[in-house]
Amino acid sequence: MRAREVRQQTGRVLVVVCDKGEEAVAAVGAALREQGIRAARVTAVGGFADAEVGWFDRDAGDYRRIPVTEQVEVLSLLGDVAARDGEPALHVHAVLGRRDGSTVGGHLLRGRVWPTLEVIVSEVAPELAKRVDPETGLALISGS
Amino acid sequence: MRAREVRQQTGRVLVVVCDKGEEAVAAVGAALREQGIRAARVTAVGGFADAEVGWFDRDAGDYRRIPVTEQVEVLSLLGDVAARDGEPALHVHAVLGRRDGSTVGGHLLRGRVWPTLEVIVSEVAPELAKRVDPETGLALISGS
Amino acid sequence: MRAREVRQQTGRVLVVVCDKGEEAVAAVGAALREQGIRAARVTAVGGFADAEVGWFDRDAGDYRRIPVTEQVEVLSLLGDVAARDGEPALHVHAVLGRRDGSTVGGHLLRGRVWPTLEVIVSEVAPELAKRVDPETGLALISGS
Repeated sequence: MRAREVRQQTGRVLVVVCDKGEEAVAAVGAALREQGIRAARVTAVGGFADAEVGWFDRDAGDYRRIPVTEQVEVLSLLGDVAARDGEPALHVHAVLGRRDGSTVGGHLLRGRVWPTLEVIVSEVAPELAKRVDPETGLALISGS
Repeated sequence: MRAREVRQQTGRVLVVVCDKGEEAVAAVGAALREQGIRAARVTAVGGFADAEVGWFDRDAGDYRRIPVTEQVEVLSLLGDVAARDGEPALHVHAVLGRRDGSTVGGHLLRGRVWPTLEVIVSEVAPELAKRVDPETGLALISGS
Repeated sequence: MRAREVRQQTGRVLVVVCDKGEEAVAAVGAALREQGIRAARVTAVGGFADAEVGWFDRDAGDYRRIPVTEQVEVLSLLGDVAARDGEPALHVHAVLGRRDGSTVGGHLLRGRVWPTLEVIVSEVAPELAKRVDPETGLALISGS
């Protein structure tokens, strides 16, 4: 465990409202680049017309893709932003709710917004950085 | 996608602790009005003795109501606050956990607290506003 | 319902990155003690190689333990920190995602991190305090 205190100097908060039909991961990524936010907490609620989530398969060394082909409530979208090669990298997980209240979730690969996605991005520090983990090939936040 | 930087000028954080038997949506709404908070991120954990969540039915133009008639852990309660007609409008989604660890979730319509609900409301800006979306009849945060 | 405004005076934000194999509850608790954080919001995403979550059994007055014996995505880890007997007490709930996207969740009792757990702790005030609720034996945040 590596813990670092990161003072919330700037206190910037970004509210990103995605429109109907937009792809959520791309839209939030574009907003981060536009605003130059490279370290943040991200939360959101809303809905998706369809989506794809992933479960990291340790043996395959890649995400197992799980398609979601129906209208779902975005019950929770939670994650962080850190810099990878100087660019903001978004890492968000989602829990999605079906018509009967049952849920499906994973690492958010893509989500087509309907009717809205209300995203709150709160910058935590300028210095979070990701490095590629040699075992998994994933870009993880480095502790130091 | 519309993104706006909203400076966290006031930095107000509200901690709302709901008592046994209280209805959560009403209790948090009352706290928001008392404190005059009209734009915020909301998160909570706790438990409900029973609840009702909703899935937005695109064809019916209304929420399909999903009753939850058992004690559940509030695994995630996540959402935002924006002003609608000058009043704070709470938009929260919930993931609830049953006795066997299975989950059910949706747009939170009501939840009867037991034994507690610990809510953290962090104000993000005074200017978030909702407008009614003509297609769905839902009040959505407007981007500009 | 008891609501209190707690000014975000210090604005401290702690990023805790848990390493492979670490137990998450212990690791985050250690970071809180090291940094002297006694009231905060906690969110995280990542993965667990295995975990145990709980559902509070009202009749038994204790958590029913639900073991999770497979690799899961930590879809949501959400909760708060308050002081109990002067020490930081972590209260977090988790939603975990399986290989097929199905979910399981509860009060997080333990989670063995793999490949990472990225935790953001944002201090909200120095004064949140827990007291033991006589009915349940649980330490709950006291409203006043």
